[in-house]
Amino acid sequence: MLVTLVHVHVLPDHVSDFIEATRPNHAGAVAEPGCLRFDVLQAPDDPTRFVLYEAYRDAAAAAAHKETAHYLAWRAVVAGWMAEPRRAEPFSGLLPDFP
Amino acid sequence: MLVTLVHVHVLPDHVSDFIEATRPNHAGAVAEPGCLRFDVLQAPDDPTRFVLYEAYRDAAAAAAHKETAHYLAWRAVVAGWMAEPRRAEPFSGLLPDFP
Repeated sequence: MLVTLVHVHVLPDHVSDFIEATRPNHAGAVAEPGCLRFDVLQAPDDPTRFVLYEAYRDAAAAAAHKETAHYLAWRAVVAGWMAEPRRAEPFSGLLPDFP
Repeated sequence: MLVTLVHVHVLPDHVSDFIEATRPNHAGAVAEPGCLRFDVLQAPDDPTRFVLYEAYRDAAAAAAHKETAHYLAWRAVVAGWMAEPRRAEPFSGLLPDFP
């Protein structure tokens, strides 16, 4: 399992826009065959800060996500709403031990 | 969904010990009725750094985890292996929208 924590900082005026635009990307991602988790988290003390918790079965599945229509549409729509560039933090998933 | 990212920094000589001790805590946690995810992640560029991704249905379920035998045993066993105190980072889980 490969996990990426994507740290997202959104402009204050676009927090709701960001959440709504992320819904179809989430729905598309969890339907991808190699996707194990795609959780959208918000910091309770700063609603402009989000983490996307993206877990894929392997590197090919993670790369395939970046080619999907839902990801590409999301990336284009949210581009103007970022307060700073997104930061992707990779991890190896040890447990659960997905087959 | 309440999510906690628990950042763990382990002493270099105890990385394997930490992973083995975490297995039964993971197995116990995912069997808890209110647990939605309990993923154990390791940084690929620094094997002494881990993240526990713990998602619970609500605050009561998250608090109940801290009372379980598997958590209390884990906490005691790993206590001497920490390079620095663990840091818990809370988030609100927006998606998936667990019922």
